[in-house]
Amino acid sequence: MSQTVDRSAKTSATTPATTENPVVDVAALGEQLMGRWAAERRTSRLLAATPDMQRIPDQTMAEHRERVLGQLKILVDTKAVHKAFPPSVGGLNDAGGNIAQFEELLLADPSLQIKSGVQWGLFGAAVMHLGTAEHHEKWLPGIMSLEIPGAFAMTETGHGSDVSAVGTTATYDETTQEFVIDTPFRAAWKDYLGNAALHGEAAVVFAQLITKGVNHGVHAFYVPIRDKEKNFLPGVGGEDDGVKGGLNGIDNGRLHFTGVRIPRTNLLNRYGDVAEDGTYSSPIASPGRRFFTMLGTLVQGRVSLDGASTVASKLAMTIAITYGSQRRQFTAASETDEEVILDYQRHQRRLLPRLATTYAMSFAHEVFLEKFHGVFSGETDTETERQDLETLAAALKPLSTWHALDILQEAREACGGNGFLFENRLVGLRADMDIYATFEGDNNVLLQLVAKRLLTDYSKKFAGADAGALAQYVASQVGEATVNRTGLRKLAQTLVDFGSTARSVGYVRDTDSQRQLLTDRVQSMVAEIAGRLRDANKLPKMEAAQLFNSNQNALIEAARAHGELLQWEAFTDAVEKIEDPGTKTVLTWLRDLFGLGLIEKHAAWYLIHGRISAQRAQAITSYIDDRLLPRLREHALPLVAAFELSPELIGAPIALGAEKERQDEARAYYALQRESGTAPIPEKAPEKSPRKVVGK
Amino acid sequence: MSQTVDRSAKTSATTPATTENPVVDVAALGEQLMGRWAAERRTSRLLAATPDMQRIPDQTMAEHRERVLGQLKILVDTKAVHKAFPPSVGGLNDAGGNIAQFEELLLADPSLQIKSGVQWGLFGAAVMHLGTAEHHEKWLPGIMSLEIPGAFAMTETGHGSDVSAVGTTATYDETTQEFVIDTPFRAAWKDYLGNAALHGEAAVVFAQLITKGVNHGVHAFYVPIRDKEKNFLPGVGGEDDGVKGGLNGIDNGRLHFTGVRIPRTNLLNRYGDVAEDGTYSSPIASPGRRFFTMLGTLVQGRVSLDGASTVASKLAMTIAITYGSQRRQFTAASETDEEVILDYQRHQRRLLPRLATTYAMSFAHEVFLEKFHGVFSGETDTETERQDLETLAAALKPLSTWHALDILQEAREACGGNGFLFENRLVGLRADMDIYATFEGDNNVLLQLVAKRLLTDYSKKFAGADAGALAQYVASQVGEATVNRTGLRKLAQTLVDFGSTARSVGYVRDTDSQRQLLTDRVQSMVAEIAGRLRDANKLPKMEAAQLFNSNQNALIEAARAHGELLQWEAFTDAVEKIEDPGTKTVLTWLRDLFGLGLIEKHAAWYLIHGRISAQRAQAITSYIDDRLLPRLREHALPLVAAFELSPELIGAPIALGAEKERQDEARAYYALQRESGTAPIPEKAPEKSPRKVVGK
Repeated sequence: MSQTVDRSAKTSATTPATTENPVVDVAALGEQLMGRWAAERRTSRLLAATPDMQRIPDQTMAEHRERVLGQLKILVDTKAVHKAFPPSVGGLNDAGGNIAQFEELLLADPSLQIKSGVQWGLFGAAVMHLGTAEHHEKWLPGIMSLEIPGAFAMTETGHGSDVSAVGTTATYDETTQEFVIDTPFRAAWKDYLGNAALHGEAAVVFAQLITKGVNHGVHAFYVPIRDKEKNFLPGVGGEDDGVKGGLNGIDNGRLHFTGVRIPRTNLLNRYGDVAEDGTYSSPIASPGRRFFTMLGTLVQGRVSLDGASTVASKLAMTIAITYGSQRRQFTAASETDEEVILDYQRHQRRLLPRLATTYAMSFAHEVFLEKFHGVFSGETDTETERQDLETLAAALKPLSTWHALDILQEAREACGGNGFLFENRLVGLRADMDIYATFEGDNNVLLQLVAKRLLTDYSKKFAGADAGALAQYVASQVGEATVNRTGLRKLAQTLVDFGSTARSVGYVRDTDSQRQLLTDRVQSMVAEIAGRLRDANKLPKMEAAQLFNSNQNALIEAARAHGELLQWEAFTDAVEKIEDPGTKTVLTWLRDLFGLGLIEKHAAWYLIHGRISAQRAQAITSYIDDRLLPRLREHALPLVAAFELSPELIGAPIALGAEKERQDEARAYYALQRESGTAPIPEKAPEKSPRKVVGK
Repeated sequence: MSQTVDRSAKTSATTPATTENPVVDVAALGEQLMGRWAAERRTSRLLAATPDMQRIPDQTMAEHRERVLGQLKILVDTKAVHKAFPPSVGGLNDAGGNIAQFEELLLADPSLQIKSGVQWGLFGAAVMHLGTAEHHEKWLPGIMSLEIPGAFAMTETGHGSDVSAVGTTATYDETTQEFVIDTPFRAAWKDYLGNAALHGEAAVVFAQLITKGVNHGVHAFYVPIRDKEKNFLPGVGGEDDGVKGGLNGIDNGRLHFTGVRIPRTNLLNRYGDVAEDGTYSSPIASPGRRFFTMLGTLVQGRVSLDGASTVASKLAMTIAITYGSQRRQFTAASETDEEVILDYQRHQRRLLPRLATTYAMSFAHEVFLEKFHGVFSGETDTETERQDLETLAAALKPLSTWHALDILQEAREACGGNGFLFENRLVGLRADMDIYATFEGDNNVLLQLVAKRLLTDYSKKFAGADAGALAQYVASQVGEATVNRTGLRKLAQTLVDFGSTARSVGYVRDTDSQRQLLTDRVQSMVAEIAGRLRDANKLPKMEAAQLFNSNQNALIEAARAHGELLQWEAFTDAVEKIEDPGTKTVLTWLRDLFGLGLIEKHAAWYLIHGRISAQRAQAITSYIDDRLLPRLREHALPLVAAFELSPELIGAPIALGAEKERQDEARAYYALQRESGTAPIPEKAPEKSPRKVVGK
């Protein structure tokens, strides 16, 4: 990072902050990126920076699992765990601070982040949110202290995305006042569960609650699975999931149950209960809404994956941009000096838009975390806020987990062979985070959930409306961009577009225009699909399903567009909060790179729908290549310096001076040769003659 | 694969082969895919199917390295190695057959493929192609028998892409008639070399040849590095590269040399020699052309990576499409039956275009391998063929290595949590193949090489030409598509486009139109860039470099478009060779999915340049979603069955019946419940009332 500091220092030393050559206030920007829970993040980073918490390369799966279990005990000792839990059991009830600190643990080892998430974020949170006071007193202290390592037994081999259809049953036996847990076939085995292969002594098992011959849907049950010697209890069995693509510090495994009896009171009964006589009761009448309410209490997993993806992207960008600013290859512009690779346009195209995306992810995550904290601290716990939170989670988690994989991969390739060495961090993080696209909700399934909500909002407004009503609705949704969202305006815009390139890009560069174009796309995509689905409810189930399926891809793309808009809005709001003029200028360029990058990526849609002209589409690309990339390249190092990653957290030798040292040594060697005149003379290329003796 | 066979069998049983419901002749298609070296591929696959050759999960790096070394000895015993080498040393001089067999070894373990490539394809091939008879007799037998494990010491820590600038020197000492090898600074250390960390006893070292004070450029030298006890020889030292993101069965490492003396005759002197008195001579006068001729002899590495990427993609598609045809989730169209996930449009969008790409890669690779064999067997060894071969290598290797990573990743995600289990192959292959995008030439650097050649061809034709000449040139390049490549035609086409959607897609569906659109794009991109670079040669070096750099991204995109066109042409030629009508129909759909998929992906370019109308662009997407995907989904299993991967080669339990068995068992369980009337009754959702007691 020394180089980073040099660069930013150098910049500020040599140039006054004007909009011509602005300077980034790295400290202030860093503080803004840290956000509301800066203190918790910094504390957690200090812990992650200690060798005991970090990954050791080339450990076997068994060694890695033991090490991570030990690291969880360290977390207990530091009382980090207590933040999450209610005061009744000595907790601090600090939902946001808790997630913030656990996200940062990814910097030490993603296995540590995820195993903690299993024990406290899933197993513990299920007891906390789905159980009641008695359960809290009885089990939370042991869960917090790791005295009771536990598994979150929801997913089954046969059901991951559609968990309402799990095959495991919990049948109430009035005679003994017990629930009997069964996994009646192989596909009903609980699977991929952290803590299930080795360490878990209990599990929160999700099963179909059956009493008096009625299935009341999926409920959560507290089920002991192993004794203190880690032997399975009667009726319980399981398997080890074995080696995975990553996260091998976690003992994922399978569990199956055969007539396992638990007391009636082990039903986590906050949202549904069974009386001694077998009568079922629930505060939520609709079985569907009841189940989704239960699931909603477990949204924090998606919050922390979104945050962890952001943290990983910051690390990847820090490594690749530092290396790209020191690595040299090919002498293009000089006889003697090789180019720094970040000075190549292609390298800028590969890294700088991803740096912009990383900033968008970071600011969007802060909004997400605030909303989560509001709901779970009770500060703003309303039905609307909970629904917004779930939609936000379903929209942001897919985008950020996919972005992290893309950013880690491009960073790896941008560091060449060095990027493939485990010591430089990128390959290990990518392997571990691969599954982030799947767990806590498959990315495609989550986006379809978002799309359905967009569609519901839309159809609630009006069914079978005509184009005019539709346009009005769209306009009403656009908010600030309402101006100019009429068909007329579109025509006018199209005319404008036949003006000069300069004028057309000038228009798009402006914040409101970016907002309008991005918002308009989401609304229009939803409106288009809604139109095609208008008659679905009149069709028989199968035909309706076929009609919906024939629009599934478009639906998911609309949801993605919605998520991109949310990220852009968060980025824009953050930029508006910046006071330092230099920082504001640079961050506005970075936001423009993100926003115009989205419009460029979706240019075909904008052209097809007459939202931008061919000239403007070309102008956007030229503006990115000729203006934004060269400008931002000058600020790339300060922009990663603002991520405030210490050398201990970065770890990668190529980003900690090793490359710079090698380059300096080589350049000094050749410089000395030139000065002393000891450099061998290059062989002259002769004019003609295919075969001749050269020299002497 | 049983399911695959069922499906294809079922299809052929129930339906006669007409263009309405065509049937794929799996056996014939499989034979065509196997290509000219089918026998070598099948022999190699039989070997790869044996447990001794396959990867064991969770081995430490040390264990994995030892295992792979042992597997190389097995290859020696099977005489597989001999194909590559000249008859003078007992070889068969079968260049194509040799590469074909080694590509297939990836199915066992990519570390095995790459370590073999290091020993025989790089180290051995360098001695063979850059050395002369004396060298062959002296060293090739030991290299073939693995008596001399060796490293290919070209890349240095400081120079990977620009190998002409390596820092290692070989200075001729007339007094002792020896070359003195030195790595004068850390960046000059040889790095990432397979066999360097542990097993290598010799290395072909690429160094600047200096004699009589003149540097004649990079040449290859045979340098012993370790004794039989694996101790470094005097002056030689090194380091282990340690754990990598994958390929940990290979002992990559670094080598450094300090005043290491080797006999004059250890210079591999086919393209340049030094006489006893230190006089340098070469059959190739130009130092630049000389070096590129040497590099050209080593093109086989790129050929085999292109082929290995194709093999990996075939395996990934076999696994994901088999699983997607058996896995069920969500009851959309029925009360009782869950949907097979490949019946979801999104899932088809994720997998079927990648299946089409896999076919394109396979057919393009066969063309590539034929050209390689022609040149290296001497059958068609002309200057033009060699240049074509190098351009083909530089264009196809980047596309196929990137495609393999994309295909493996999408297949992994499409298999959900199952895809993340090591036993299901996808994660391990992806981790190993990550670096295929970098070694044997960084993908971006290779594409820039292609772009420069496209630009050279273009500028050779005419400098400073006017639009008319340009249009003519473009037309002349388009070949069959020459018709309609005038501005007038473009206008006419645009008019046509305002016709109905059906008509507009009808036009693009046709083979010649796809060829025209894809060819036109490459030519026009090159022409555009050439126009912008026209004055570069009049500028000072630095400004010229800046002008070139400001077009670098566009150049690389043009090269990618060229590579995509080559793949499309190979696919189209292969389809034209098919005689069975059913197979031809289905493969034409698959080719259309590939071709129209490219046009859809680059729709913004086609719209901006007025090549297609908005209606046509939309029609292409509708045609893919509503026609091609549903049609091809019916043939997905026969299309992967044609890859002829045996259960032993597939390995992944989820593609070998495990998922089908689980699904059948679960469905039987629920069917029985329904029949016997023992199924619990689902809780009824009451009309209204927010909170009430349900049941009883």
